[in-house]
Amino acid sequence: MEKNFYQPLSANVAPKFGAPTTFMRLPQREDASGLDACFYGLPMDWGTSARSGTRLGPRQVRAESTQIRPYNMGTGAGPFSSLSIADIGDAPLNPYNLLKSVEAIEEFVTKKIIDFNCIPLAIGGDHTVLLPILRAVAKKSGPVCLIHVDAHADTNDVMQGETIAHGTPVRRAFEECLIIPDHSIQIGLRGSGYSAEDFDWGKQKGIRVVEAEKCWHKSLTPLMSEVRQLVGNRPTYLSFDIDALDPAYAPGTGTLEVGGLNPIQALEIIRGCQGINLVGCDCVEVSPPYDPYGRTATLAANLLFEMLCVLPGANYKGSAV
Amino acid sequence: MEKNFYQPLSANVAPKFGAPTTFMRLPQREDASGLDACFYGLPMDWGTSARSGTRLGPRQVRAESTQIRPYNMGTGAGPFSSLSIADIGDAPLNPYNLLKSVEAIEEFVTKKIIDFNCIPLAIGGDHTVLLPILRAVAKKSGPVCLIHVDAHADTNDVMQGETIAHGTPVRRAFEECLIIPDHSIQIGLRGSGYSAEDFDWGKQKGIRVVEAEKCWHKSLTPLMSEVRQLVGNRPTYLSFDIDALDPAYAPGTGTLEVGGLNPIQALEIIRGCQGINLVGCDCVEVSPPYDPYGRTATLAANLLFEMLCVLPGANYKGSAV
Amino acid sequence: MEKNFYQPLSANVAPKFGAPTTFMRLPQREDASGLDACFYGLPMDWGTSARSGTRLGPRQVRAESTQIRPYNMGTGAGPFSSLSIADIGDAPLNPYNLLKSVEAIEEFVTKKIIDFNCIPLAIGGDHTVLLPILRAVAKKSGPVCLIHVDAHADTNDVMQGETIAHGTPVRRAFEECLIIPDHSIQIGLRGSGYSAEDFDWGKQKGIRVVEAEKCWHKSLTPLMSEVRQLVGNRPTYLSFDIDALDPAYAPGTGTLEVGGLNPIQALEIIRGCQGINLVGCDCVEVSPPYDPYGRTATLAANLLFEMLCVLPGANYKGSAV
Amino acid sequence: MEKNFYQPLSANVAPKFGAPTTFMRLPQREDASGLDACFYGLPMDWGTSARSGTRLGPRQVRAESTQIRPYNMGTGAGPFSSLSIADIGDAPLNPYNLLKSVEAIEEFVTKKIIDFNCIPLAIGGDHTVLLPILRAVAKKSGPVCLIHVDAHADTNDVMQGETIAHGTPVRRAFEECLIIPDHSIQIGLRGSGYSAEDFDWGKQKGIRVVEAEKCWHKSLTPLMSEVRQLVGNRPTYLSFDIDALDPAYAPGTGTLEVGGLNPIQALEIIRGCQGINLVGCDCVEVSPPYDPYGRTATLAANLLFEMLCVLPGANYKGSAV
Amino acid sequence: MEKNFYQPLSANVAPKFGAPTTFMRLPQREDASGLDACFYGLPMDWGTSARSGTRLGPRQVRAESTQIRPYNMGTGAGPFSSLSIADIGDAPLNPYNLLKSVEAIEEFVTKKIIDFNCIPLAIGGDHTVLLPILRAVAKKSGPVCLIHVDAHADTNDVMQGETIAHGTPVRRAFEECLIIPDHSIQIGLRGSGYSAEDFDWGKQKGIRVVEAEKCWHKSLTPLMSEVRQLVGNRPTYLSFDIDALDPAYAPGTGTLEVGGLNPIQALEIIRGCQGINLVGCDCVEVSPPYDPYGRTATLAANLLFEMLCVLPGANYKGSAV
Amino acid sequence: MEKNFYQPLSANVAPKFGAPTTFMRLPQREDASGLDACFYGLPMDWGTSARSGTRLGPRQVRAESTQIRPYNMGTGAGPFSSLSIADIGDAPLNPYNLLKSVEAIEEFVTKKIIDFNCIPLAIGGDHTVLLPILRAVAKKSGPVCLIHVDAHADTNDVMQGETIAHGTPVRRAFEECLIIPDHSIQIGLRGSGYSAEDFDWGKQKGIRVVEAEKCWHKSLTPLMSEVRQLVGNRPTYLSFDIDALDPAYAPGTGTLEVGGLNPIQALEIIRGCQGINLVGCDCVEVSPPYDPYGRTATLAANLLFEMLCVLPGANYKGSAV
Repeated sequence: MEKNFYQPLSANVAPKFGAPTTFMRLPQREDASGLDACFYGLPMDWGTSARSGTRLGPRQVRAESTQIRPYNMGTGAGPFSSLSIADIGDAPLNPYNLLKSVEAIEEFVTKKIIDFNCIPLAIGGDHTVLLPILRAVAKKSGPVCLIHVDAHADTNDVMQGETIAHGTPVRRAFEECLIIPDHSIQIGLRGSGYSAEDFDWGKQKGIRVVEAEKCWHKSLTPLMSEVRQLVGNRPTYLSFDIDALDPAYAPGTGTLEVGGLNPIQALEIIRGCQGINLVGCDCVEVSPPYDPYGRTATLAANLLFEMLCVLPGANYKGSAV
Repeated sequence: MEKNFYQPLSANVAPKFGAPTTFMRLPQREDASGLDACFYGLPMDWGTSARSGTRLGPRQVRAESTQIRPYNMGTGAGPFSSLSIADIGDAPLNPYNLLKSVEAIEEFVTKKIIDFNCIPLAIGGDHTVLLPILRAVAKKSGPVCLIHVDAHADTNDVMQGETIAHGTPVRRAFEECLIIPDHSIQIGLRGSGYSAEDFDWGKQKGIRVVEAEKCWHKSLTPLMSEVRQLVGNRPTYLSFDIDALDPAYAPGTGTLEVGGLNPIQALEIIRGCQGINLVGCDCVEVSPPYDPYGRTATLAANLLFEMLCVLPGANYKGSAV
Repeated sequence: MEKNFYQPLSANVAPKFGAPTTFMRLPQREDASGLDACFYGLPMDWGTSARSGTRLGPRQVRAESTQIRPYNMGTGAGPFSSLSIADIGDAPLNPYNLLKSVEAIEEFVTKKIIDFNCIPLAIGGDHTVLLPILRAVAKKSGPVCLIHVDAHADTNDVMQGETIAHGTPVRRAFEECLIIPDHSIQIGLRGSGYSAEDFDWGKQKGIRVVEAEKCWHKSLTPLMSEVRQLVGNRPTYLSFDIDALDPAYAPGTGTLEVGGLNPIQALEIIRGCQGINLVGCDCVEVSPPYDPYGRTATLAANLLFEMLCVLPGANYKGSAV
Repeated sequence: MEKNFYQPLSANVAPKFGAPTTFMRLPQREDASGLDACFYGLPMDWGTSARSGTRLGPRQVRAESTQIRPYNMGTGAGPFSSLSIADIGDAPLNPYNLLKSVEAIEEFVTKKIIDFNCIPLAIGGDHTVLLPILRAVAKKSGPVCLIHVDAHADTNDVMQGETIAHGTPVRRAFEECLIIPDHSIQIGLRGSGYSAEDFDWGKQKGIRVVEAEKCWHKSLTPLMSEVRQLVGNRPTYLSFDIDALDPAYAPGTGTLEVGGLNPIQALEIIRGCQGINLVGCDCVEVSPPYDPYGRTATLAANLLFEMLCVLPGANYKGSAV
Repeated sequence: MEKNFYQPLSANVAPKFGAPTTFMRLPQREDASGLDACFYGLPMDWGTSARSGTRLGPRQVRAESTQIRPYNMGTGAGPFSSLSIADIGDAPLNPYNLLKSVEAIEEFVTKKIIDFNCIPLAIGGDHTVLLPILRAVAKKSGPVCLIHVDAHADTNDVMQGETIAHGTPVRRAFEECLIIPDHSIQIGLRGSGYSAEDFDWGKQKGIRVVEAEKCWHKSLTPLMSEVRQLVGNRPTYLSFDIDALDPAYAPGTGTLEVGGLNPIQALEIIRGCQGINLVGCDCVEVSPPYDPYGRTATLAANLLFEMLCVLPGANYKGSAV
Repeated sequence: MEKNFYQPLSANVAPKFGAPTTFMRLPQREDASGLDACFYGLPMDWGTSARSGTRLGPRQVRAESTQIRPYNMGTGAGPFSSLSIADIGDAPLNPYNLLKSVEAIEEFVTKKIIDFNCIPLAIGGDHTVLLPILRAVAKKSGPVCLIHVDAHADTNDVMQGETIAHGTPVRRAFEECLIIPDHSIQIGLRGSGYSAEDFDWGKQKGIRVVEAEKCWHKSLTPLMSEVRQLVGNRPTYLSFDIDALDPAYAPGTGTLEVGGLNPIQALEIIRGCQGINLVGCDCVEVSPPYDPYGRTATLAANLLFEMLCVLPGANYKGSAV
């Protein structure tokens, strides 16, 4: 089968503020057949402990993504000429039932994406989605290295007695052997905790933890060299919770923690993943009601585009800054 | 036991924009012991099919209620001199599990309020709460007449396969014999439906349905005479979904339907309940993220105060306009 | 060719807050081939004299339209079972050149819609669009009766020396013989003018003018009987500027005029068009930046759905309220 | 001295969204010398008991007034051809001292306006300003009839022990014999009170009180006939608190009361003042932070323009609707 | 008397978005009897020269503080196990009279807090409050070292002729010998001034001034070593005006100055106070109307929690990052 | 002619939140006669490819500029004592015709400012304005060095077939020999592009390009030394597009690009222009609808004030930090 190298609808054909509102105005496809990578939405917020609203995240991220042009001026990447990429819509979630939604995500990612050997790029949605995505990804790739950028460890055992929620997926993924803890890393953790040992669980399991304080006042480019060494050529999943950033940069999210990363560091993290064997990515926890003009969604859309630019096989036409 | 006639904290003691933020700055109590009526919060939005955010409703309604003074200038009511009233806080809900939350509400209303022979006034929260409240109320009062003010009939059988959600409580309440359909009424229904017969289910069960169109351009005071006749002296529950009002008046809600009631009609409905044997009331579906300055919450707070003013036993010091 | 009766994507398949964001989640088509009616967007604001932002109108109207269910509970209409309806995207406009944009609209409406004998329903965009739409419509239908609902007469001769702008289309349409003035009507005019005779131009040409003041405190259902008589069975175009409504109901627009119509009257106007030989409709001037949570867009989306429900051939399954 | 009939800067000279931002883009003058009427600002909020922000009211009302054209299409009035009108800026207030501010207002209105036999039109500012304005006006006109449109009676004796605040000016004005109670009226009172008799004080002094409930569902044009009879040809002051309107129409204010007037009724009240011997007017309590896009300010600006149109001597070029 | 180590209401008992809304959902107390430290609100904005709104600051800071968990992950502090802490509500202020409000604050802090040997943590409110707090604190502690973090020096002599306002408290405190200038410091000063010497007054009195420019691009941890040396073991008061931060991080305040501190530096300043003999703290000038979703309040709430964590006697359970 | 050293209206005369709203409350003048420098507005957005709204930029920037005091505390500059400065209002633009607007700007800047040997400081408006300003400036100064701070190169050849738009002015200026490319610089470029070579056009023409990535994590003070060398004593124009800053600092603009400059770097750039022979400056692309509370406008106003402080001849009274 010959590959279709889909291009975002050009602003010269129709202004960027018009239709359609797929991710970057890429074609819409029913599933990932024939695609190398695909964007998909997970519109849910019923795994959230704090402010809700992430159910509208995919819609706003897609709307703001229409402003992004096809070439990455900072790295020279032009992914659309070497990868076949489209938007395959949203998983069919059940807003009244968290467990069924988690099952639906696993099935959607498996049957619509992974079964076609396509790399999934998720638009969240609350972070509960990480668990079913990893379940689907691991079916094909086996346990993966996890690069987890977040303000929170998401390693709670239970929340109000429940094992599935947006604060537990990393713990569950470990228990289900979906991740390789010794080659995984958490970046940006900070804030307040239910106990003084909240971040220690992961460390004890072998996960490297880089708290936000260790990122203050510095470039994260050196850290990413270490990360590339840590994961090697193992299959790796990149999960980016937008609340890893300081609320000044990402006000549209549910659980604000002060003293976070900045967008430059976010770009350094993702650009630093170039060369890693990425088998899946996400950007989650964008909550539009708290940022109606879409600054946070704009940031998330750009981070997703940057992830696309570092996928295995992405073309580089220009030269990096 | 001697009754305590609690008074809202006066603006002469501390400015209204200061602490505390209980409903109308009434005292906070652990339960309804010794109270004639009480306000309580149901901070949930995980029964919602559309935009979320009602989990923050009780907080904002309480905050805006601090502006209300203790006498009703339109009716002369001064309920605080004849009824013992306080705020008993929120039911302990589980944001990850709708069914457990519904159970928790039933238990809270039963054990903290109904068991003390106190009239509950709920601050919602999405409309799923109606079912467990009616379960609790019916334990003591038996089936009740329902005065249901809403844009939606909430008589769906299932939503995405689920029987419990914010669009099903009236159907479930009927099936569980919690309401007396022949002496119940729905006011304000309108908008679009999944079938052309969406509003017929209730009619077939005997519920009187007054669509919004039948309310246009007129006072609802005459209708309320009919309502008082319909319910007679039977125990009656008043459930007021803020989306019964046109979005112009109540933008802070999840499911907007155009062509709705106006605040004058809302006041006429509640004031028209004077003399009815009210055994419980609620005002639900206030979603603060869509109205950050609290206009909708101010309206809801006033409607709750007006409900208080028509409870059996509320005192009237002045004369009505 | 057998007709496809497209249905909006059901909320039981995927929650309403998810993808896609075509109008009412109808299928997207390239043109109107095989369709009886179609929605299309005109994302422009460069014909505006006041606040801009309507370039984002079609996107937000489509987003909010996803909340609308397929049956009209007020009238019993179920248009999707008898008419083939889809969304054909946006006209390719030029944001730097008003005249070229006007030409592009005329060509788009002609070649993508009118040439297929399909009824166009435009999602604006500023009101400049009325002129090129009427040019396209009149090619097939000849001059049309105009039902023009608006706060402004849009009969200026020039604005800052220009003949094409959002305040001139009705005058240009008259001059180009695109409308039948003696069988046309303007409803809702009000506010302040550049001269005391601003509304007289239309009257002198034979257009009936119903100022907002004549609509105050009353149902417009009687007026619409007169309108149906006025237009008879002539081809008729319905143009609805959202600023016809009072700013309380439609804050998201550029030129606010106080004392306007209310949503009930807007519904009465459109429902009163049942039986009229409508050959095209629009709802224009929705400016999202001034209503970020989409209350105005929700109203516009509903008005467009109501227009669909009164198109010739629309089915009625239930009975009207 | 020959009169200058100043005209608002035309939109044909410079777009309405540009400079300057005097009221209706009228010329700025140092004082009222040679003027028949003048607009002036009272940027204060330190007399407020509830939410603050009216200190920014004059700025926003002026900004939104730039959208108003010079002719009143509803009444045919064209005041700029027969009256000399300008904007004389703001009174020099002291934000740290309410009493000094009250003195400054009295001095400003006296020396800059009244001493030039000019009619003052105030842009508020909280309602505390009414007292010093009346003090200044009464120096020349003697006691005046007061047409007071408001949700609140503003007849408190003291507020937290203070005699000067935004809830006391009518009582103080009565005590200082600045108003003629038997020929004064309060329209729109409603809401909740500190006692059930809050509105009775005025009635006992002879002031006519028309509560909001008496205005529901009806035109106020008949009421205004009675008002014109009540005041006769006595000098009359019109004070319009924007919170007289329901919060749906005027969200940008500090003390929201539900069930209020609508903009149509507001226009009827002011247009109904035609023929009255108006010696001063104000529109107060616009609080921009609670309506950042200026819908409330637009309404207030229009009400001030309508006041201008009914001043003694205002020209009528067209005919009323 | 045995000490009560009050704990914030756990999210496992009731979701964080529910009641109550005391600071961190701590118990409410009438006064500081038996407490080691207490939070209290000063809801005022009538000492402000620019935009108002800080009267609502305490309410919003408390609301957002409900998201904070009891352990400080960055420092390991767990203050609730070694200190008895509660919320004692607001001082009874007079919104119409600045001087009486200043007196009320002094009396409240003295009698409700200082007399019980409790450390006060104020939630502002405009910065005028600093003067009466220092008056109360100095009664027991004598003159204190002042660590003053702010964009403004607040050392004006008079403002519009008044000696008490939010721009004068440091000058007044010096004059009244409430501070020890030679062991005090101001951090973050910047912006524009009424004269080129605005910041020199403090320097001439011996206060160390670290302008914002001296903080650019660097960690403030080294500076805090110097601060600890500067104050030694003298009683020290920490006053943190939220406008010390750049408006990007703290948009919800009245007087924006560009080029300010960032949240990381704010955390470094407060964490750098560990070991200092703090006798009182505040965080002031949060103005909710300019940040309705509470990002600024979230920051302020976290800064207040961080202050709690460095109070003398606060426990450390974990280890610092 | 004796020079008038106009002073901003003092906050001691009238509070800063009151009238007037000229830039920094300077006097309004008809033209630049007798002035050394002047502010002027260019209220337009019809050259924009993305979100509109900059037509309201000048109004909001002026409104927020009223908060700025006359002395620069960071540099000691007090420009009002040595330069005669006023606000000369807006150019008369045509919102329906981009080319006529461009002509109007050239004529306005030429005849109202340049012909009086006055330095123009423009308040934008979209960046299309740069071309006509440079045309006017070059008439007197000849080709100028351009210091261009922006996220975008603005060197497109055409946009949707048009040669004049907000993404083309630098290319046009080069072609028209209005700039000296070898002594010009672009700072802050980043984001995505239509081709991987988008930024190369300028480099090939000799313009120095400093991408945003080269500015990350560092002071720009060293860069500005190089810039001063680059331009020498040639006439130089400084054009500052507010989107050069990261959206966190400047959300109120149309085309957001993540990873941008911060306000400290912006101040360093402008302060680093001290000693340069500046013949004109602008700050453009402030779009108020996307930042209704004016944080972006506050930043722009301060940058314009900082530009004033580095104009040739500006006085320095204090000493720099």
